[in-house]
Amino acid sequence: MNKVLVLGAGQLARMMDLAGTPLNLDVKAFDVRSNKVVHPLANEHTYGDLQTGIDNCDVITAEFEHIAHDVLAVCEASGKLLPSSDAIKIGGDRRLEKALLESCQVANAKHKIIDSRADFDAAIADLQLPIIFKSALEGYDGKGQWRLKSMDQAAAIWADMQDFVEQANTSVPQGIIAEQMVPFEREVSIVGARSRNGEIAVYPITENHHTNGVLSVSLAVASTNALQEQALEVFTKLTEKLDYVGVLAIEFFQVGEQLLVNEIAPRVHNSGHWTQQGSDCCQFENHLRATLGLPLGNTELIRPTAMINILGEDSVPEQVLSIPGVAMHWYNKSKRAGRKMGHINVCANSEQQLAEKLQLLASILEPNAFEDLQDFADRFQARLG
Amino acid sequence: MNKVLVLGAGQLARMMDLAGTPLNLDVKAFDVRSNKVVHPLANEHTYGDLQTGIDNCDVITAEFEHIAHDVLAVCEASGKLLPSSDAIKIGGDRRLEKALLESCQVANAKHKIIDSRADFDAAIADLQLPIIFKSALEGYDGKGQWRLKSMDQAAAIWADMQDFVEQANTSVPQGIIAEQMVPFEREVSIVGARSRNGEIAVYPITENHHTNGVLSVSLAVASTNALQEQALEVFTKLTEKLDYVGVLAIEFFQVGEQLLVNEIAPRVHNSGHWTQQGSDCCQFENHLRATLGLPLGNTELIRPTAMINILGEDSVPEQVLSIPGVAMHWYNKSKRAGRKMGHINVCANSEQQLAEKLQLLASILEPNAFEDLQDFADRFQARLG
Repeated sequence: MNKVLVLGAGQLARMMDLAGTPLNLDVKAFDVRSNKVVHPLANEHTYGDLQTGIDNCDVITAEFEHIAHDVLAVCEASGKLLPSSDAIKIGGDRRLEKALLESCQVANAKHKIIDSRADFDAAIADLQLPIIFKSALEGYDGKGQWRLKSMDQAAAIWADMQDFVEQANTSVPQGIIAEQMVPFEREVSIVGARSRNGEIAVYPITENHHTNGVLSVSLAVASTNALQEQALEVFTKLTEKLDYVGVLAIEFFQVGEQLLVNEIAPRVHNSGHWTQQGSDCCQFENHLRATLGLPLGNTELIRPTAMINILGEDSVPEQVLSIPGVAMHWYNKSKRAGRKMGHINVCANSEQQLAEKLQLLASILEPNAFEDLQDFADRFQARLG
Repeated sequence: MNKVLVLGAGQLARMMDLAGTPLNLDVKAFDVRSNKVVHPLANEHTYGDLQTGIDNCDVITAEFEHIAHDVLAVCEASGKLLPSSDAIKIGGDRRLEKALLESCQVANAKHKIIDSRADFDAAIADLQLPIIFKSALEGYDGKGQWRLKSMDQAAAIWADMQDFVEQANTSVPQGIIAEQMVPFEREVSIVGARSRNGEIAVYPITENHHTNGVLSVSLAVASTNALQEQALEVFTKLTEKLDYVGVLAIEFFQVGEQLLVNEIAPRVHNSGHWTQQGSDCCQFENHLRATLGLPLGNTELIRPTAMINILGEDSVPEQVLSIPGVAMHWYNKSKRAGRKMGHINVCANSEQQLAEKLQLLASILEPNAFEDLQDFADRFQARLG
């Protein structure tokens, strides 16, 4: 078994191919826009339609969760889809996600499902302000979200989200999740793999920083055992419940010493990109190993590592390449404002050295394009004392 | 500038592409057998002939030194070839190599050039036994070599090498180098890069072990400063003399605390494959950076690392994948006895831990395929005490 078809032909499929090629794995990508199977690193090279791709692979997997359900159905019918379509769909629908969390008794923010104006009013009555409303199907990276901080905003927010809710009984049900906003200390995530035989390996939890709702920096440094074990316990509960195979990411809010699940991503995840330089076996390789039934690779943190997203920029000063421990990862995408164009991994021998490198990067990179980086670097340095 | 054409479409071009893709570099390979430009990771995808490849790239470089001189000439005429054809040719002709070493006053084994029976007799008279005779043009990986240990072997050796020598005055002059065999302690190499602006960065020296004349294991561990500085001095002398641009490897015999140059390879080199896991910026990335005029990346040793060549085998037990710090690199080649099919990089947190991992690997890998590995692992462990 060494042929993998990835549903989706973006940067995650690209990085899976880069990780799989040295293992002699044959990774191809299904481009959902052109409906063609393509080379993940050179999408001008095509290999026929979806059915041809399905016939010619050993395993089908996905790089994103918003895949048309008819595509998932035909893939699942082949018996080759991993993780299952149920698991993929959960990542694409916050209502299913919440139902899973409840059924596993996993801590998460208090919430209500809104399918009507009556639900909206009930949610406002039941939950404490501030409340965040999230589109169940479409919201990610901060899109399709509304924040209700005081009651005088309620009418405007309802007017804005009414369209989503009123499609609730059409063929593509939408719906909104109302969630009590948690006064959290920080956001962290755990990325891990579960293999065909149930073996589980998780990376150390990662601290995530968002800018305008989009991940801007992830930080992988030593964490407390208690937090790591909590995250592992949630990872184990959820993946066992789903009989999940592959890499899965769970985002948490940290409130005191408790982790509340925010979101589940049934795939390799932006907050795991640091593993390309900070671990022996990156999340892309472990995802391929898990789905192909190969032994999982070591997920320990090798050295303190940060990941900086490059949003809307197609170049950085060359000086960045001179910094020891800095690795560039470009996605070969055309420039568009706010688009994820690449990322920078930064490794160091100590947290103090990592803080210094982040300061250096903040001084080199264009502040308008990396607007929170200086602030993040300052806060990280401050907490090291 | 981001388009590179590599002369040669083997594993070195493949690994250059894998290193260059995350930098958004467009690496293509010229397959000298089919005379077509191909995708380095998928050679069924072609991009026209050599001239088309030359026209469509910014820089031309090479993954091996035995390139037809007419191909080198047309590449050099484009003004895009780096390193120069003179530098590439030196790696392909031991006579030019020896002339370079002499002109730079770089220590190497005492030798004579043989173009006739008279030269052969003179070499035997001048040099002390044992003598190694090496074909000037064709010998590598132990082929085209003869060892004269006692005078009674002379007639048989001459009979065998006569064909090489007697082509000396044809259009493809051959010739033989006779070299006094050095009773060396070990073989080491230095791999480094010199960029367009003369910046030099070398990796730590690597200890190399050969099996039947072919590299089987490289070991990158801390070395003495004195040896590293000697190797750097030779690297600097030779690359400055050649105004060399790119990665170059120099193999040495270590005799006491002195390094004698054995061979020069004007390219990325098998003894530098460990840099993929043991350094921040591997030799493939640094070669691309050097030729494209980008800043060179950090060449420090991050942690003790060994590289084990996979010769003539197309699989290893899956258990290998479970060992922390082990990374597989397969070249997607069809199986053939003795062929370089891939390599295994092994990293550890200490030399002692590296020795333990090598012992573990020696116990897992098929002894017939990795015939000297157990012996090497034992010797490495013994010297750590």
